[in-house]
Amino acid sequence: MAATQGQVITCKAAVAWEANKPLSIEDVQVAPPQAGEVRIKIFFTALCHTDAYTWSGKDPEGLFPCILGHEAAGIVESVGEGVTEVQPGDHVIPCYQAECRECKFCKSGKTNLCGKVRAATGVGVMMNDRKSRFSINGKPIYHFMGTSTFSQYTVVHDVSVAKIDPQAPLEKVCLLGCGVPTGLGAVWNAAKVESGSTVAIFGLGTVGLAVAEGAKAAGASRIIGVDIDGKKFDTAKNFGITEFVNPKDHDKPIQQVIIDLTDGGVDYSFECIGNVSVMRAALECCHKGWGTSVIVGVAASGQEISTRPFQLVTGRVWKGTAFGGFKSRSQVPWLVDKYMKKEIKVDEYITHTMTLGDINKAFDLMHEGGCLRCVLEMHA
Amino acid sequence: MAATQGQVITCKAAVAWEANKPLSIEDVQVAPPQAGEVRIKIFFTALCHTDAYTWSGKDPEGLFPCILGHEAAGIVESVGEGVTEVQPGDHVIPCYQAECRECKFCKSGKTNLCGKVRAATGVGVMMNDRKSRFSINGKPIYHFMGTSTFSQYTVVHDVSVAKIDPQAPLEKVCLLGCGVPTGLGAVWNAAKVESGSTVAIFGLGTVGLAVAEGAKAAGASRIIGVDIDGKKFDTAKNFGITEFVNPKDHDKPIQQVIIDLTDGGVDYSFECIGNVSVMRAALECCHKGWGTSVIVGVAASGQEISTRPFQLVTGRVWKGTAFGGFKSRSQVPWLVDKYMKKEIKVDEYITHTMTLGDINKAFDLMHEGGCLRCVLEMHA
Ligand SMILES: NC(=O)c1ccc[n+]([C@@H]2O[C@H](COP(=O)([O-])OP(=O)(O)OC[C@H]3O[C@@H](n4cnc5c(N)ncnc54)[C@H](O)[C@@H]3O)[C@@H](O)[C@H]2O)c1
Ligand SMILES: NC(=O)c1ccc[n+]([C@@H]2O[C@H](COP(=O)([O-])OP(=O)(O)OC[C@H]3O[C@@H](n4cnc5c(N)ncnc54)[C@H](O)[C@@H]3O)[C@@H](O)[C@H]2O)c1
Ligand SMILES: [Zn+2]
Ligand SMILES: [Zn+2]
Ligand SMILES: [Zn+2]
Ligand SMILES: [Zn+2]
Repeated sequence: MAATQGQVITCKAAVAWEANKPLSIEDVQVAPPQAGEVRIKIFFTALCHTDAYTWSGKDPEGLFPCILGHEAAGIVESVGEGVTEVQPGDHVIPCYQAECRECKFCKSGKTNLCGKVRAATGVGVMMNDRKSRFSINGKPIYHFMGTSTFSQYTVVHDVSVAKIDPQAPLEKVCLLGCGVPTGLGAVWNAAKVESGSTVAIFGLGTVGLAVAEGAKAAGASRIIGVDIDGKKFDTAKNFGITEFVNPKDHDKPIQQVIIDLTDGGVDYSFECIGNVSVMRAALECCHKGWGTSVIVGVAASGQEISTRPFQLVTGRVWKGTAFGGFKSRSQVPWLVDKYMKKEIKVDEYITHTMTLGDINKAFDLMHEGGCLRCVLEMHA
Repeated sequence: MAATQGQVITCKAAVAWEANKPLSIEDVQVAPPQAGEVRIKIFFTALCHTDAYTWSGKDPEGLFPCILGHEAAGIVESVGEGVTEVQPGDHVIPCYQAECRECKFCKSGKTNLCGKVRAATGVGVMMNDRKSRFSINGKPIYHFMGTSTFSQYTVVHDVSVAKIDPQAPLEKVCLLGCGVPTGLGAVWNAAKVESGSTVAIFGLGTVGLAVAEGAKAAGASRIIGVDIDGKKFDTAKNFGITEFVNPKDHDKPIQQVIIDLTDGGVDYSFECIGNVSVMRAALECCHKGWGTSVIVGVAASGQEISTRPFQLVTGRVWKGTAFGGFKSRSQVPWLVDKYMKKEIKVDEYITHTMTLGDINKAFDLMHEGGCLRCVLEMHA
């Protein structure tokens, strides 16, 4: 039992006081976990675009002040009443997508979008008392996505904790909390790409490269990578991309370029950027009769996708995925095991490592072409 | 062998000389079938909205003068060189969707959208010589959808002819050339509705009612019919609709009405109108996580569908279907057999019968609420 059990822990966290202002490293008070809650010591966290999006102020559901972060790994410090599936000392990945195994979503067998704690996590609080466990001198700081991993300690709902192999290196497997599973699952769960298929991937960041890796594993015969940043191609080859197309090199609309390259279009396409006009191109470059396009990128609030309905009437399918369709508590440990068996890459997505104190620099890096994932060491 | 074999046949046909002008019953010359072609004596034809749409002039691909019509049944009069699968005397349904069994679409096993004769049927001619088989005093009249059933005799490609049970009443099974299979197949082939599912159907014309019938056969637990014409409900009950919603009775958007009625949305929805804002509503009334919406209605050219990508990222699927996904030559005979075994309705969709000479009156009827299908007797 940790000496801190039942106590408020004061630790460092990066606080977003308001939209678009640099994050500030503060001493925060982290309350003990209540019934059904787990307090986790976060060892490593990566940065993802959803953090940057909310921080930017463009997310109308963003609440400030808050502690961002949702791609991390740590060790359970203590658990609240009634928590049975994890205990202090367990190695875990906090998951923004819960899995309660009881709600109609979990029981449907058709989706990973558990509804159990959404009403609370959507508004930055915990279910039990609809309050935050973070505060600074008594002033509450909102949670974010039910994870808030930019803190040395965080409190999450027990349905949001995936217990993983204690041998797994936390500085690597933290990536299995968001971007990499999202890409792999888009291929394996949402599209269900079959061997021999042709694939187009729009956007070759971490998510797009994980799509490429998933498509290669599924036996895709051609994997066309599309990015406006020509420097992406060299790295992309290592993840399975077989051909590279830069829209800037063509006068024709990019959907037409892909259709011409593939004698009618690809079997599967993936949008991994968050750009609604690229989402349209991704649908329209699919083959008539069966082509399926999966939206993975998250567009800014209020933006809309459109196309002519004829695109669908003639057999194309438009779908999307969140966290790649993976059930978090059940499947994140399985992904960790696949990594340990070297069946999936993780290390290759980490281009930078820093400490919590450098978090603002890390966010700057995200806008530079050379960065895939930057991992922060939380207790350096 | 028919006495007319190898001869030009002069017969009556309803000719659309130009957009939006009443059809005119003319003596047309129908040339003998060339290699790979079949000349059919049409006995009965129904009217469908696609005929009215092209006739209206709103279809940018519409060509005039032409002979419309694509929902019909008849008997083979003669066949051209190399035609082996049908012979004079065979009872047939001409199909606007060909099935060659050789092209990449047919061989894909994933779609019914055969590409073999499209290049010709799309521009109102036959493949062999890129010319029409219809003329009036030497002036060519365009074909329509590769069927042109508003003529007492028509010439079609052999890959577009479904040979059916000669016992089947042609005055009924003509409907199996378009509307009824489209609705049944939207459920069975495109959506694959499972037993116990909830379904919403927008538009309760022939297509929407056939969707209801298909959903009932698939074991759907609730089948909600949506129509702005309150008179549709009484008939609709006989086709399986369990609840009726008239958008005019509600202030809320119709998607919200359905979501409220079904505790979160339906498992499957079908748009059977051709209205792009209803297509959006049909998608958005689907349940988060798994709801699938199928576009069946044909929107006017140039119109676009839109929604927020979040609708798809949170698990809804948007697709469409043409001719219900049925392979025409293989499956229309199977549908005829199901009708003969009383497993599917056909008679119930026929609200009016007339003769070819009344075709303009028949088109007027289409715009009246009480009409589902009007069948024309071609040789009365
Ligand atoms: N659905 C989910 O569950 C989920 C989970 C994680 C991330 N995401 C989203 O996935 C998207 C990608 O994330 P990432 O971390 O890989 O981002 P990233 O910024 O690292 O990668 C995006 C790539 O797209 C390229 N790009 C930008 N505009 C382009 C255009 N018009 N055409 C072609 N390429 C273009 C960029 O050069 C870059 O290489 C983001 O929108 C993120 O929010 C979604
Ligand atoms: N995809 C295909 O292969 C295919 C094949 C045949 C027909 N279609 C199309 O299917 C559609 C339906 O055909 P049909 O013969 O059943 O037509 P129909 O006109 O008989 O039925 C349409 C119904 O929709 C109702 N309606 C109109 N506007 C509405 C609204 N805003 N909200 C709710 N209800 C509304 C009407 O009252 C009517 O009952 C047409 O667009 C037709 O072109 C498609
Ligand atoms: Zn993320
Ligand atoms: Zn759940
Ligand atoms: Zn039709
Ligand atoms: Zn074919």
